[in-house]
Amino acid sequence: MAKEKKQPRPKAVTPKGFRDYFGTEVTERTHMLSQIAEVYHRYGFEALETSAVETVEALGKFLPDVDRPNEGVFAWQEDDKDWVALRYDLTAPLARVAAQYRNDLPSPYRRYAMGPVWRNEKPGPGRFRQFYQCDADTVGAATVAADAEICAMLSDTLETVGIPRGDYIVRVNNRKVLNGVMEVAGVLDPSNPDALVEERGIVLRAIDKFDKFGEDGVRLLMGKGRLDESGDFTKGAGLSDEQADIVMGFMTARRDTGAATAARLRELVGASVVGNEGVNELEYMAELLDAQGYGADRILIDPSVVRGLGYYTGPVFEAELTFEILDEKGRPRQFGSVSGGGRYDDLVKRFTGQEVPATGVSIGVDRLLAALRAKGRMGSVATGPVVVTVMDKDRMADYQAMVAELRNAGIRAEVYLGNPKNFGNQLKYADKRNSPIAIIEGGSEKENGVVQIKDLILGAQIAANATLDEWKERPSQYEVPRSELVAKVREILESQGK
Amino acid sequence: MAKEKKQPRPKAVTPKGFRDYFGTEVTERTHMLSQIAEVYHRYGFEALETSAVETVEALGKFLPDVDRPNEGVFAWQEDDKDWVALRYDLTAPLARVAAQYRNDLPSPYRRYAMGPVWRNEKPGPGRFRQFYQCDADTVGAATVAADAEICAMLSDTLETVGIPRGDYIVRVNNRKVLNGVMEVAGVLDPSNPDALVEERGIVLRAIDKFDKFGEDGVRLLMGKGRLDESGDFTKGAGLSDEQADIVMGFMTARRDTGAATAARLRELVGASVVGNEGVNELEYMAELLDAQGYGADRILIDPSVVRGLGYYTGPVFEAELTFEILDEKGRPRQFGSVSGGGRYDDLVKRFTGQEVPATGVSIGVDRLLAALRAKGRMGSVATGPVVVTVMDKDRMADYQAMVAELRNAGIRAEVYLGNPKNFGNQLKYADKRNSPIAIIEGGSEKENGVVQIKDLILGAQIAANATLDEWKERPSQYEVPRSELVAKVREILESQGK
Repeated sequence: MAKEKKQPRPKAVTPKGFRDYFGTEVTERTHMLSQIAEVYHRYGFEALETSAVETVEALGKFLPDVDRPNEGVFAWQEDDKDWVALRYDLTAPLARVAAQYRNDLPSPYRRYAMGPVWRNEKPGPGRFRQFYQCDADTVGAATVAADAEICAMLSDTLETVGIPRGDYIVRVNNRKVLNGVMEVAGVLDPSNPDALVEERGIVLRAIDKFDKFGEDGVRLLMGKGRLDESGDFTKGAGLSDEQADIVMGFMTARRDTGAATAARLRELVGASVVGNEGVNELEYMAELLDAQGYGADRILIDPSVVRGLGYYTGPVFEAELTFEILDEKGRPRQFGSVSGGGRYDDLVKRFTGQEVPATGVSIGVDRLLAALRAKGRMGSVATGPVVVTVMDKDRMADYQAMVAELRNAGIRAEVYLGNPKNFGNQLKYADKRNSPIAIIEGGSEKENGVVQIKDLILGAQIAANATLDEWKERPSQYEVPRSELVAKVREILESQGK
Repeated sequence: MAKEKKQPRPKAVTPKGFRDYFGTEVTERTHMLSQIAEVYHRYGFEALETSAVETVEALGKFLPDVDRPNEGVFAWQEDDKDWVALRYDLTAPLARVAAQYRNDLPSPYRRYAMGPVWRNEKPGPGRFRQFYQCDADTVGAATVAADAEICAMLSDTLETVGIPRGDYIVRVNNRKVLNGVMEVAGVLDPSNPDALVEERGIVLRAIDKFDKFGEDGVRLLMGKGRLDESGDFTKGAGLSDEQADIVMGFMTARRDTGAATAARLRELVGASVVGNEGVNELEYMAELLDAQGYGADRILIDPSVVRGLGYYTGPVFEAELTFEILDEKGRPRQFGSVSGGGRYDDLVKRFTGQEVPATGVSIGVDRLLAALRAKGRMGSVATGPVVVTVMDKDRMADYQAMVAELRNAGIRAEVYLGNPKNFGNQLKYADKRNSPIAIIEGGSEKENGVVQIKDLILGAQIAANATLDEWKERPSQYEVPRSELVAKVREILESQGK
């Protein structure tokens, strides 16, 4: 005999930073995404699915986050020397598509996209290198009516997937207002917009960390800098106290009504042209949303919303879930943000030279699923199939006929296909599958034309809780004529609330 | 002013061998996959979604196809020097999962998986480097009842997505029968199974090309070799005419009934132990399928089915669509295979050393979609949204209110968000979107409390076909009170059959 070559056995492991999804982890996400797609479709958005791979050139300079410049993409070189990479978001491929098909697509082009994206980051607990995004964007609409529409759609989407009104809020702000405030504070010179870019970046990031560091921490970051508990020093923007006051005034400009907030913002932006433009846009969005019935209980003007990404140019928005969950130490805290977006008018320009206005939103799919599970709207243990046990190996055809009848009646069912020798293993299997019912047809049942039907849910309840008398009174196993199999199974499933 | 750095503009192109999917190309696939998932679920299969990335070690030697050994995977090296790659199918990840979670998964483990896979192949027309697969496999069931179940499920799946009975056939064969025939022909020595491996590979591939080359071509490949039209020579297996006769006898062993075919096969395998085992398995599968009502009109024993992959060890099956389509030259031909699979008992062993029986099926998603389009069951032009036009830029809030009403009534609708100056552009946009209806509310309509509703479908029909009299009798534009907007839109959509 020829000698077999021995190779070392490969390890059966998921690559670092990646994960596997089983059963309901897959189907619940699929279900949620289909609900979201239905809302997007009703709003006139069209599906787009680009490939996972883009040329590195097309992905270009739009790295995931300016705050994390070292983190990148999974890239490799093709045989013809071109470099390609896995997409790190769904916006860069949209920009490429909008440029590539600009003569064929309707304008404005409303599109939605759902799918995995990949980030070449250091994996950590709960931090994965492949995850789902779910985006909707409108390309080619200069009016902030497009932004308002996306905010309304975001609100509808959250309610459709199961976040009740009152448990979420969509907050809206406008980068132009912030720029106006920066102008008043002397950190932005409209005649020289490229000066002080670094300082503005620091200010933006500081504002974005308001929730984390509080007013004092943010003021340190806007001024001389901040030393954290570990001894690390974050460089500040070098603003004077007066300058910082102005920016902080913006942060705390929210009033009870949108109109009052807008009025306060108008004071703050003073004579700044861009600042006034921003306030106008906010007021216009509020007016449009109001006309559609979206009040401040759903969509709110909130100047503390900044959004980290540098490329936003006008309205920015984010959806926050306001109900409380317990954190890892058991303390209640708000669930927080599940979605964000805004206007980014320069993204297509790098391909074509033409400025194309665009606005969009991205939903954090895993965050939203986690929220729905926290609300008890998902994540319950899924019911397994009815299991037809194999009492007599030679009568497999009989068992297959039973299971076919059940399936044809729309009932999830299967025959036990492992080694049938040990009947206990079959019941253990049914238990592991979380089966609601087991079917038994041994030789004597066959002879008498009957089957045994075991209600496994009731059986487990009785085993756990019942007294002997109760146990006697509430049988969890029924003998019925073979011809009544489907009807009895259906009756038991209904009694179980399936 | 700081000088802007000029970078060359990136090209907006899909990477070579990849493609983008728009609108119904996405939603029709999603719909079909959800129908398939429903059938799989009813059969007791559980969803599994592994990440796109696997360690190269785990993908190991299972290259896509032994016939194309030079074609490979997209791989790159991690910072820690490990090599990882995009999965090239859904079976290799299943083998990894079955090994990795073997203590937690139920056994048998029925799972389905749907998603893209990637092949680092030379792209060509209609040949893409990313495409969808849709698999169902049972791991841990030694009985061919598991194979029969998958054949039944495949039949149900095809009918569920819209291939009527009679338009498809699931053909079943068994590698063991073929091995028995090889034994009789002297190309397989059971006491030395590693000898003549190359010859058997050539014979397998030759049989697989029966449809393409006919009996003469196959005989050449089994014998001295075959010279094709271009002058390329394919090496033959070197079988004598007598040996080739025996193998060809197997190929043409199909009789009118499964029983007759099995009887003929039993003659052919003679005393071969493995051959008789294979015939027994075929007969057993036929018996089980018969008990479930799957006759030869749906699932057929057909010895000409071989399936290219070397790793199959027992039953093999494939689903063929039998209706005719026109090929690129306008000649009618059968649509052909859309799915295939079989038993591969050795796949998990390389991880654990333990032999784990497994069987499964893979559906070619793009092929099946193409078939449904060829049958007119998909691919009709999708209806666009109702378009609310913008007659007066300053009354955007009114238009948004209309569209919100329509959406809340479940009607797909949008406001035109491009530059509203040129009304013709708005109607052109509605046309490009394939909108069924346009809504118009100018100043005088507003004053009179009415809206104009244009039936764009009827309008296009009239413009194309009607005489002047018909045109007068069949108005395609209606003026209704503003309060009746939703009701009238719904009425028109219904008249359009939406």
